Amino acid sequence: MKLSIDTPALVLDRQKLRDNIQTMQAYAEQMGVAVRPHIKTHKCTHIARLQREHGAIGISAAKVSEAEALVKAGMDGILITSPVVTEHKIARLLSLLQRAPDLLVVVDCVANACQLNDACRQANLTLTCLVDIDPGVHRTGVSYAEAQGLARTIHNHTHLNLAGLQCYAGNLQHIATFEARQEASTKAMTQTASVRRQLLESGLPCPILTGTGTGTFDIDSAIDGITEIQPGSYTVMDQEYANIEGCDQQPFNRFHHAMTQLVTVISANHDTHVTVDAGLKALYIDPTQPRIISHPGLSYDWGGFGDEHGKVTATPGVPLPGVGEVLELIVPHCDPTINLFDRFYVVEGNQVVDIWPIDLRGCSQ
Amino acid sequence: MKLSIDTPALVLDRQKLRDNIQTMQAYAEQMGVAVRPHIKTHKCTHIARLQREHGAIGISAAKVSEAEALVKAGMDGILITSPVVTEHKIARLLSLLQRAPDLLVVVDCVANACQLNDACRQANLTLTCLVDIDPGVHRTGVSYAEAQGLARTIHNHTHLNLAGLQCYAGNLQHIATFEARQEASTKAMTQTASVRRQLLESGLPCPILTGTGTGTFDIDSAIDGITEIQPGSYTVMDQEYANIEGCDQQPFNRFHHAMTQLVTVISANHDTHVTVDAGLKALYIDPTQPRIISHPGLSYDWGGFGDEHGKVTATPGVPLPGVGEVLELIVPHCDPTINLFDRFYVVEGNQVVDIWPIDLRGCSQ
Repeated sequence: MKLSIDTPALVLDRQKLRDNIQTMQAYAEQMGVAVRPHIKTHKCTHIARLQREHGAIGISAAKVSEAEALVKAGMDGILITSPVVTEHKIARLLSLLQRAPDLLVVVDCVANACQLNDACRQANLTLTCLVDIDPGVHRTGVSYAEAQGLARTIHNHTHLNLAGLQCYAGNLQHIATFEARQEASTKAMTQTASVRRQLLESGLPCPILTGTGTGTFDIDSAIDGITEIQPGSYTVMDQEYANIEGCDQQPFNRFHHAMTQLVTVISANHDTHVTVDAGLKALYIDPTQPRIISHPGLSYDWGGFGDEHGKVTATPGVPLPGVGEVLELIVPHCDPTINLFDRFYVVEGNQVVDIWPIDLRGCSQ
Repeated sequence: MKLSIDTPALVLDRQKLRDNIQTMQAYAEQMGVAVRPHIKTHKCTHIARLQREHGAIGISAAKVSEAEALVKAGMDGILITSPVVTEHKIARLLSLLQRAPDLLVVVDCVANACQLNDACRQANLTLTCLVDIDPGVHRTGVSYAEAQGLARTIHNHTHLNLAGLQCYAGNLQHIATFEARQEASTKAMTQTASVRRQLLESGLPCPILTGTGTGTFDIDSAIDGITEIQPGSYTVMDQEYANIEGCDQQPFNRFHHAMTQLVTVISANHDTHVTVDAGLKALYIDPTQPRIISHPGLSYDWGGFGDEHGKVTATPGVPLPGVGEVLELIVPHCDPTINLFDRFYVVEGNQVVDIWPIDLRGCSQ
C-alpha cells in the first residue's frame, strides 16, 4: 500500500469494511437472526453507525462507559454484555437509562438483580435485563441449571423487565478446526436454547437469546432459538481469525482483512534484522505473530525490543528493508491493538478518504 | 485504600510521587549528573512539570509526537531518544525545532545525518544531535567502534550541531541481581564514556553523555563521563522493578510504589475465583503478575479471561472477595498500562485531590 501517512497508523479499507458488514448482515437475515454487533472490537461510533445503516438492531457494549459514548453519539438498542454491580456504575447506568429507555443489561446473580431493582425503584425507572449464562468459561454468568431461577427472580422484581438470555462463549471462537468449534459451540448454544424453551414453557418472557462471536456466527445462527448475534471482529479481522479453519475446511476467509497497520523501519544497522517504530504500545502483544503483507518473507518478532520498537527479520534470501521503508501488517488480535490508537485512516484504493476517531478507545470502566 | 472512584482506575499518590522525584534528583546532584527524565513511562506533562520544578534539565521523549505535546505544554530541553528518519517525521521535527530551538535528537546512521542536514538547510535551521550508541541490544544505535566516525560526520555537516552521545541499555534494567546488573551496565557505560573521551581528545564537541534507566541509575551515575541520566519508571514504579534486587542486596525499594490500579469484582459465582472488571485492555499483559496489595492472599491471573475481565484467585484458607469489592494492585509494567488510561486520580491519604490527564497517551508516532 502506498499511502502518504505517518506511522505507526491503523488503516481501514472502507469498501472491505462495508463488504464485511454486509456479508454478516445478509447471512444473519438469511438465517432469521438479528445482528447487535459488539463495539468492543472497533471502539468507533462511525463503524457502529454503518452497522446500524446496514440493518443491525442495536449495538453491544462491554462496559458502561462504552454505552455512554454510544448514547451520546445518538445510538439506541444498546446491550451491556457484562454485569453492572457497583453504586458508581449503577448510578451511571440509570442516568443512561433515562436517555436510552431501551437499554439492556445482563445480570448473573440474585443479589445484583435486587440491587438493580432497588436503584430503579428509587429512580422510578424500569430496566430491561437478560440472564447471563456461563457456557463453561466461568468468567461471568450463571450455570444452565440456575438460569431459570434467576430469570424468575428478575421477572418478579417490580422495576426490572426480563427480556431473555445471553450466552457468549468467548473461549470457543478461536478453536482451530471447524469441526471441533462446531461441536463445542453447538453444545453450549443448544443448552442455552433449551433454557429458553423452559422459560417460555413456564410462562416467562424470553424474546431475546443473544450470543456468538465472529468464530461461531455461522454455527450458532443455525441453532433454533437463537434470536440475535453479537459479533465484533468480522468488521476488521485479524491474524488470530486468519489462523482458524472456516466451514469449508479452507482458511477462515469469509471476511476481508479490512484493517492493517503501517510501520516504518527506523534503524537498519544489522544483517540479521531491522527496527521498526511500532513496539508493544502500538501492537498489543499476543501469542499470535503479526503478519507482514507488504513484503513477503519478512516477519515481525516480539522478542526484546520493548514498548517503543519492533524487530523485523527476513527469511534466508529475502533482503531486509531499508531505513524509512514502510511495512504493512495484519495485527494479531484486533481489539486490544485498536484500543491503543486514536483514529483510523480510512482508505479507498491508495487514497485516504477520511479519518474516523476511535472515540471509545480507553473506555474500560 | 478507601476511595470513592469508579474502576478500573489508576491512582497516583502525590506525596510518594514527589518523594520519588526528589530522591532521584538528590541522588543525581550528589553524583554530579543531570536528570532529563523520560516521559515514555508516565505520559503526563503534569508530572514532567513537577520533574522540572525539582531540578530536571529537560525531558526525554521516545517519539516525535510526545515531543510535540511537550512543546505545546510549554516544556523545553527535550531530547528525542529514537532516530527520526521519514519525510513525515522530519517535517514534524523541523516544525518543532522552530518553536523549540534547544531540541535534541539522536542519530544512528550516516544517511540519516545527511537527510537531517539537507532538511535543515532547506529550512534554514540548525539541529542539535547526539550519536546513538548500541550497547548490544541491537535495537537502535551504532557500535562503539563506529560512533566516532558518525560523530565526525554530524560535526562536519553545516546544519547539524554535535552535542554528544546517548547509550541506553534497556535490556539491562531488570537483571535480577544487583551484582550482575552492575557488571553489565558498568561495562556498557564505561565503553561509552571511553568513546566520549576519544571524541574530546580528537577535538569533537561532546558536552552530553546520556543514558540509564531506573534499574541502573545508581550504577551508571557513578561512571566518570556520564553527564546526564534519563530514567522514567522511578516516578511511579511497578512490580517488575519490585522484583529486582537493590544495591543493598535487599529488594529494590529506593522508590515508592506511587501508582496503583483499582479494580472491582463484578462476578463471583465460583468457589475457585472471582472475576474483576480489568482485563488486557486495562492491565497490559506481561510475564510479571500484577500484585494485589489490598487483600493478602489474592492473586490476579492473566489466564483466559481476555480483553475485558480478569481472574482473581485466593490461596487456600483466604476468602474470596465478594461482588462489588474493590481491590488495589501494583501493575506489572507501568509504561504500557499507563498508556491504556486517560487520567491519573491523584490522592493524598484517602482523598482524591486532583485529576491529571495522561495527555501523551497514544503518542506512538
